Amino acid sequence: MITSLKLTLVLLALGFSQGQQHNYVDQFEEEAEAERVVGASKYGALWPLPQKVKISDVSFKLSSASFKISDAKESSAGPGCSLLQTAYKRYYKYVFGSAKWQELSKSRPTGPAVLLELQVWITSPDSECDGYPSVSSDESYELTVDQPYAVLKAPKVWGALHGLETFSQLVYEDEYGAKSINSTTISDFPRFAHRGILLDSSRHFLPIKVLLANLETMAMNKFNVFHWHIVDDPSFPYLSRTFPQLSQQGAYHPYTHVYTPADVKMVIEFGRLRGIRVIPEFDTPGHTQSWGKGQKDLLTPCYSGSKPSGSFGPVNPILNTTYDFMSQFFKEISTVFPDAYIHLGGDEVDFSCWKSNPDIQKFMAQQGFGQDFSKLESFYIQKLLNIVATTQKGYMIWQEVFDNGVKLRPDTLIHVWKGNKEQYQSEMAKVTSSGFQTLLSTPWYLNRISYGQDWQGHYKADPQDFKGTEEQKKLVIGGEACLWGEYVDATNLTPRLWPRASAVAERLWSAVDVTDLNDAFNRLSVHRCRMVARGIPAEPLFSSYCPQEYRGI
Amino acid sequence: MITSLKLTLVLLALGFSQGQQHNYVDQFEEEAEAERVVGASKYGALWPLPQKVKISDVSFKLSSASFKISDAKESSAGPGCSLLQTAYKRYYKYVFGSAKWQELSKSRPTGPAVLLELQVWITSPDSECDGYPSVSSDESYELTVDQPYAVLKAPKVWGALHGLETFSQLVYEDEYGAKSINSTTISDFPRFAHRGILLDSSRHFLPIKVLLANLETMAMNKFNVFHWHIVDDPSFPYLSRTFPQLSQQGAYHPYTHVYTPADVKMVIEFGRLRGIRVIPEFDTPGHTQSWGKGQKDLLTPCYSGSKPSGSFGPVNPILNTTYDFMSQFFKEISTVFPDAYIHLGGDEVDFSCWKSNPDIQKFMAQQGFGQDFSKLESFYIQKLLNIVATTQKGYMIWQEVFDNGVKLRPDTLIHVWKGNKEQYQSEMAKVTSSGFQTLLSTPWYLNRISYGQDWQGHYKADPQDFKGTEEQKKLVIGGEACLWGEYVDATNLTPRLWPRASAVAERLWSAVDVTDLNDAFNRLSVHRCRMVARGIPAEPLFSSYCPQEYRGI
Repeated sequence: MITSLKLTLVLLALGFSQGQQHNYVDQFEEEAEAERVVGASKYGALWPLPQKVKISDVSFKLSSASFKISDAKESSAGPGCSLLQTAYKRYYKYVFGSAKWQELSKSRPTGPAVLLELQVWITSPDSECDGYPSVSSDESYELTVDQPYAVLKAPKVWGALHGLETFSQLVYEDEYGAKSINSTTISDFPRFAHRGILLDSSRHFLPIKVLLANLETMAMNKFNVFHWHIVDDPSFPYLSRTFPQLSQQGAYHPYTHVYTPADVKMVIEFGRLRGIRVIPEFDTPGHTQSWGKGQKDLLTPCYSGSKPSGSFGPVNPILNTTYDFMSQFFKEISTVFPDAYIHLGGDEVDFSCWKSNPDIQKFMAQQGFGQDFSKLESFYIQKLLNIVATTQKGYMIWQEVFDNGVKLRPDTLIHVWKGNKEQYQSEMAKVTSSGFQTLLSTPWYLNRISYGQDWQGHYKADPQDFKGTEEQKKLVIGGEACLWGEYVDATNLTPRLWPRASAVAERLWSAVDVTDLNDAFNRLSVHRCRMVARGIPAEPLFSSYCPQEYRGI
Repeated sequence: MITSLKLTLVLLALGFSQGQQHNYVDQFEEEAEAERVVGASKYGALWPLPQKVKISDVSFKLSSASFKISDAKESSAGPGCSLLQTAYKRYYKYVFGSAKWQELSKSRPTGPAVLLELQVWITSPDSECDGYPSVSSDESYELTVDQPYAVLKAPKVWGALHGLETFSQLVYEDEYGAKSINSTTISDFPRFAHRGILLDSSRHFLPIKVLLANLETMAMNKFNVFHWHIVDDPSFPYLSRTFPQLSQQGAYHPYTHVYTPADVKMVIEFGRLRGIRVIPEFDTPGHTQSWGKGQKDLLTPCYSGSKPSGSFGPVNPILNTTYDFMSQFFKEISTVFPDAYIHLGGDEVDFSCWKSNPDIQKFMAQQGFGQDFSKLESFYIQKLLNIVATTQKGYMIWQEVFDNGVKLRPDTLIHVWKGNKEQYQSEMAKVTSSGFQTLLSTPWYLNRISYGQDWQGHYKADPQDFKGTEEQKKLVIGGEACLWGEYVDATNLTPRLWPRASAVAERLWSAVDVTDLNDAFNRLSVHRCRMVARGIPAEPLFSSYCPQEYRGI
C-alpha cells in the first residue's frame, strides 16, 4: 500500500506541470501493481525535472553488450562531431559502469522487452557541434523511449547533451540488477537561459582537477555557465601572456598555483563539450590587491596624513597608464575566452584610500566630482566599459555599477547579489524597469552554510518573484549559485557545493510550478546518490544511505 | 622585518607555558636572522602544543637515504614490538614522503650538521607494546633533538607514539627543500586522559576506509579515544555473532552496509597501533528503532487508543526476555571490544509510547511508580548496569542517567552533552560534586556548522571551567568532539571534522594557559596543510594556500 502510494506520488510529480498526462500513467496502474515495490527511486530520479514527462510502466531491458548510442541517419551531426561522440562514451559509462566494458559479447539479446539503441538526431542543418554555447543557444530536446529504439531529437547539440543526461537518469536497475528503462516521452527546455555556478579561485587556488569535476557535475544538473571568479585580492592565479608578472608576483605560487594558457584552454574545452560556457570575471577597480604586486602604479597609493602609507587601494583611475594596461589586458582576455561575455565585477569599492590620496582629491576637484567618490568610480567604469566594448564582448557587472548610475550598453547584464529578500526583489524590479537584463545570485550564496537542510531555502527562491510587468520578468535571464572561496578549497568544495547547487539547478531549469519540497527531496536524494555513484562526493541531505557509497575519504 | 617578527612570535608561542625558556631562543636570535625568512611555519608547526618546548635556531639536515628510527639499546621494546616498528615506517614516510624510498643510497652523508638517527627508548620494564591503551595509560614522553642523534624517551609505547608525531612535526624543509630539524628539547604529557572523537555510523554508514582515515588523523592530533556510536534508530550496521538478525534486518543493507567481526577487529587494532582506544556505544533504551527490526518483542509496542498502532517505542523494560537478550548481547560486546569501558547511552528517552501501552501502565502501578516514567527508565537502566557489571566492564553514560538519579557505580563516567554554557557548567559542577568522573561534549558538537571560523569557539571552551573545588576539577577526565551523522557520510565527513576537531585536541592536550587565538591560528594553519600533505582533506581555516594542495576532489 505504501509503495503503491509512493509510486503514484512520483508519477504525479513527474507530470507535475501538466495534470492531463496522468491518464497515460493511470492506464498502467493496475498491471504494474507488482512492479511498484521497486519504489520511487527507480522511476522518479529525474533532476532537474523536465518540462513535460510521460513515463509508462512498460519497461525494457538494456544490455551492455549490445546497447548502442548512435547518430540517426537524418542527423546533421555524424561521426565527425567529436562533441557528441565523447558524450556517447561518457553516458554509456554512466549507464553501464566502466566495469561492464569487458562484457561485450557477440550474441545479440533479443526478445520483445529489450531496448537496443538510442538514436540521436540533430534536426537543425547547423548542429553547432564545433561551436560554443551561448546565451541564445537552443537547449531543447525531445526524447522518446520505445521499442526497438529510443530517439533523442534536438535542434542543436546542446539539447542533445541535456537529453543524453536525461536518458541516463531514466535507466534504473531492476531487482536482479538488470539495467532497465520505461517507455517514456519527454519534451524539455530550460526556463532560463543563464544557469550558472560561480567558483572563486583566488581566495583558495582550485586545482584543475577540481574545476573539471565540477564542470562534469554541472552537466549532470544542466547548468550551462561556469562563472570563473579567477582573480581577486588574495591571489592572481591567471597566467597572462601579455603581463606574466601578474601571476609571477600575484599568485600564491608562480608555478604550482597558476592557471597556464593550456589549463585555461582545457577548462574551456571541457566545458564546451558539456554545453557549458566559461565566463571569466576580472573584477576591478576593487578586489585588486593581488594585481598590484606585479603591475607597478596600477593601484592607488593610500596616504597616512601627507605621506604614502605603503598600502594600496583600488585601481588608480586618474592615470592614463591604467587605461593603457586595461586595454592590453582585456584584449588578451577577449581572445583567450571565447564567450561573448566577460564579467567585469565592479562591486564593493572602498573609497577610503581614494579619499586619502592628494592626487585623487585634486583630480576630483578638476572633474567637479565634489566629494562624491561614486562619481570617480563611475568615471573609471565608464572608461573600462568603452575599452571592453572595442573587443566586441558584452559585459556582465555586479549591481553596484547599475546602482551608481554608470552609463551602460543596453545589452549589459546586471548581476544582483546584495540585500535581503525584499531588497533584492526591489533591485530586480528596478533593474528590469530600466530595461536591463538581469540575473540573480543573492539567495544562492552557497558559501554561507548553516546547520540542516538549507537546500530548501535555495529551492524556494525564484528569480521572477518580484513586482513587475511580464516584460520585466522576461528580462530575467537566470541566476547563479555562488561559492565564494574564503572557506573552501580542494578539500571540501565539491561536497559543499553538491547537491546544494542542484536545488538552484532545478529552479532555473524546470517549470515555475515545480515547487513541491517533498517530491524534490525524494528525487534529489536519488540524484545525489547518482552523483556519488559517478564519483562525485555530493553530501547527504539527511540520514540515509546510497547503494554505492563514496569511495574516497 | 615582518618575517623576523613572525618567527619571534612563533618561538614565543612554542615556549608559551614557560617564559623562562626564551633565553635559549634569544641567544640564537641574532645569528639566525638570515634563516628567519623561512617563516613561522617551518619552526612553529607543533599541534597540539607540547607542555614544555625549547627550540634553538641550530638546525640539522636529515637525509632520507641514511636517517634511521631505531630502538635504543636500553629500550624495553625491541624489534619484536610491531606497534613501534609500524610506527617507525609510518613516520619515516610522513617525514620523507613515500617517493623518497627509491633514493636510498649506500653513501652516508657526513658533516657537522646532519641528524643521523632518532633513538626510541621505552624506559619502563613493561613497554605495553602488546597491550591496549587505557584511561590510565602513561602517555608522556621526552624528546631531545641533538647531534649525532635524537632521543625519544617514554615510559610506555603510548608516549613514544605521541613523541614520534611530535618529531615529525618538527621536521621542515629549508629553502632548498632539504629536510631540516632544529635542536630541540621537549617534555610532554596530556592535560586530560580522555580525548575523544565520536563518530556516528548509524545515520549514515561510514565505510571502513573513512573510519581508518580518521583514526590516522586522530593520531596526528594526539586524540586517544574513538567513541564509536555504532548503532542508533536509523540503522544497525554491527554484525553480531550472537544475534546476526539485528544487522540482517536492521542495517541499511545486510551485506554492503555492515561491520563484520573482521572489520571491527581491524578498526580496534588500527586504533591500538596508534594509541587509540575504541569505545563502542550501544545506546538503550531509546534510539533503538533499528534493533526492533531483527529482535522481536524487544521494543515497546505503542498503542493508539486500545489497539497497538503498529509502531514501536523504546526497549520494553517490563519483559524478562529483554534482560535475557541484553545479557547475551553485552556478553558478546564485552569480548569483542577489549576496552575497559562500554558506552551505554541512556539519552533522550521518549516516554509517550510507554505511556500509551496498557501493559506498561499496569507495571508502573504494580511498581508504585505513579506517572513518573523516569522511574521506569531508571528501573531499566539499573537492571542493564547490573548486567554489564557482570562482564567486568566499566560504563560511560549520557548525563540523563545521572540526572534521573539512577544508582551508579562510583567508577561510572558521566558524559555531559546538554544545554548552553551556563547549563553544562552547572551540570559539570553537580556531577563532580557527587563524586563522579565526567567528560564534556556540549561545546564540541562539530556536526553543528555555521559560517566562518567556528573552531575558535571550540578552542575557547574548557572542561574545567566551572565553579567547583580542586577535587572536583580532578574528576574531569577530558572530553569528546562529536560528529553526529544526520548530515555527514563518506562524502564530507573528513573535511567537516578536520581541522575543527584539532581545536578540541589542543584544548584537551596542552596546558590550561595555551589560549592565544592568533598563535593557534598560525600553528593550526600549518598543521592543517600538514594533514592535507598526508592525504587528509582537512578544510581551510580562511583564505590561504598549502604548498601541496589536496589531490582529490
